[in-house]
Amino acid sequence: MYDRIKESFDEQGLMKTLNAKLVSVEKGEVKISCEFSEALTQQHGFFHAGVATSIADSACGYAALTMMPEDMEVLSVEFKINFMKPANTDKLIAIGKVLQSGRTLTICEGYVYDISEEKLICKMTATMIAVKK
Amino acid sequence: MYDRIKESFDEQGLMKTLNAKLVSVEKGEVKISCEFSEALTQQHGFFHAGVATSIADSACGYAALTMMPEDMEVLSVEFKINFMKPANTDKLIAIGKVLQSGRTLTICEGYVYDISEEKLICKMTATMIAVKK
Amino acid sequence: MYDRIKESFDEQGLMKTLNAKLVSVEKGEVKISCEFSEALTQQHGFFHAGVATSIADSACGYAALTMMPEDMEVLSVEFKINFMKPANTDKLIAIGKVLQSGRTLTICEGYVYDISEEKLICKMTATMIAVKK
Amino acid sequence: MYDRIKESFDEQGLMKTLNAKLVSVEKGEVKISCEFSEALTQQHGFFHAGVATSIADSACGYAALTMMPEDMEVLSVEFKINFMKPANTDKLIAIGKVLQSGRTLTICEGYVYDISEEKLICKMTATMIAVKK
Repeated sequence: MYDRIKESFDEQGLMKTLNAKLVSVEKGEVKISCEFSEALTQQHGFFHAGVATSIADSACGYAALTMMPEDMEVLSVEFKINFMKPANTDKLIAIGKVLQSGRTLTICEGYVYDISEEKLICKMTATMIAVKK
Repeated sequence: MYDRIKESFDEQGLMKTLNAKLVSVEKGEVKISCEFSEALTQQHGFFHAGVATSIADSACGYAALTMMPEDMEVLSVEFKINFMKPANTDKLIAIGKVLQSGRTLTICEGYVYDISEEKLICKMTATMIAVKK
Repeated sequence: MYDRIKESFDEQGLMKTLNAKLVSVEKGEVKISCEFSEALTQQHGFFHAGVATSIADSACGYAALTMMPEDMEVLSVEFKINFMKPANTDKLIAIGKVLQSGRTLTICEGYVYDISEEKLICKMTATMIAVKK
Repeated sequence: MYDRIKESFDEQGLMKTLNAKLVSVEKGEVKISCEFSEALTQQHGFFHAGVATSIADSACGYAALTMMPEDMEVLSVEFKINFMKPANTDKLIAIGKVLQSGRTLTICEGYVYDISEEKLICKMTATMIAVKK
């Protein structure tokens, strides 16, 4: 399961650009981290909302993919994300968790924490769809 | 007005990393573009959803900022985005438009088009908040 | 097309309870109205957000249904709604419009106006799914 | 705290119309239930999405209100809700929980269960705002 996700993750140019790492893969749960750099900031010098969103989206998508048959792949239908605290941390940790998986649609929740995994920076709810490869 | 937005835009390390450009600034409407590169892809070689989302978020935030007094700045409270078509284009064009502006909160809509500005790739609704500098 | 929607609308007990009316049905666009009564209020005596949401959801769902084959029906996958102005009006007018229709999923936008159809009270984006009857 | 919420709840005409009951009030968490009746259905005879949404919105709003000073009241800024299972149950149980509370904005999560409180029918994320009475 890890290999399936890792292979896809490594094909995402954006994850490389963000210097994001695939931390762990379990059935229904995927963790991705991203270290701070100047290249990822908004105008106040913290992580840009787009970085947190990108790794949360990938974490949710891959969490959904762990529930899907091998001949399917995953696309994001939509997501909603609330930003709760400023993302001033040395590392973002995004955790995607499957809330409900169906044959076509999978609903996931994404949590982005600071480096201590204690401060919840943002919270996503995402709808993912399984499509034939 | 353009200068105010441009100055902030240039401080966003992520916009530089994505090679995003501030195209235009009008009262209540901001346009940002982003050229395709391998550095911005998901696993199928198209633009990652996170790229479209990042420039749409910035376009919405800056559109909101054009409605706010000079001593305020803008933060994203939350947004929701629907992905409608694969982002296989040479350039993404994100347009943020103010739907309703209040003293504290501003609601914006973000549209991300392909290079022709004809194919709507994704659609965002965002809530922005004005905060004292 | 009107008959197909009208028949389903009349089977919705909630629409009767809210005293909602099916105003018009066109391909990709459905309008539903709801007159004010004390039975539909929140604590300040205006329309409850739930009423605006219910008729916007129905308008979006039926707008989606106008794009689907006769042997399919529609279910709400998810929606997001922003409340922009207090719903203090004698009648709510909800308009559901298809933004993008696919074989499985249809994305709609819902607008709820006051009686004059000039004040935008709330704005919805909804994802609908086609299911076999 | 219960009295403050109960008084407001009793002023909501819609809660009476839906025959909804305020089940419990704790700091940061409010529970509302709603018994099935033909008056609350969609076209397949189950609870209409609008009913689940209405009680989830009220539960989230009141959960937020439990965190606010006595001279403030609460308004819904926006919410997003995913529908996961058909609402074919004798009673809906909505639980609103505060995820993050700030001076101006409070983020809540709403869960709507079936009568057994085991089947999660829908999941809401809501942004609430405190306003001076």
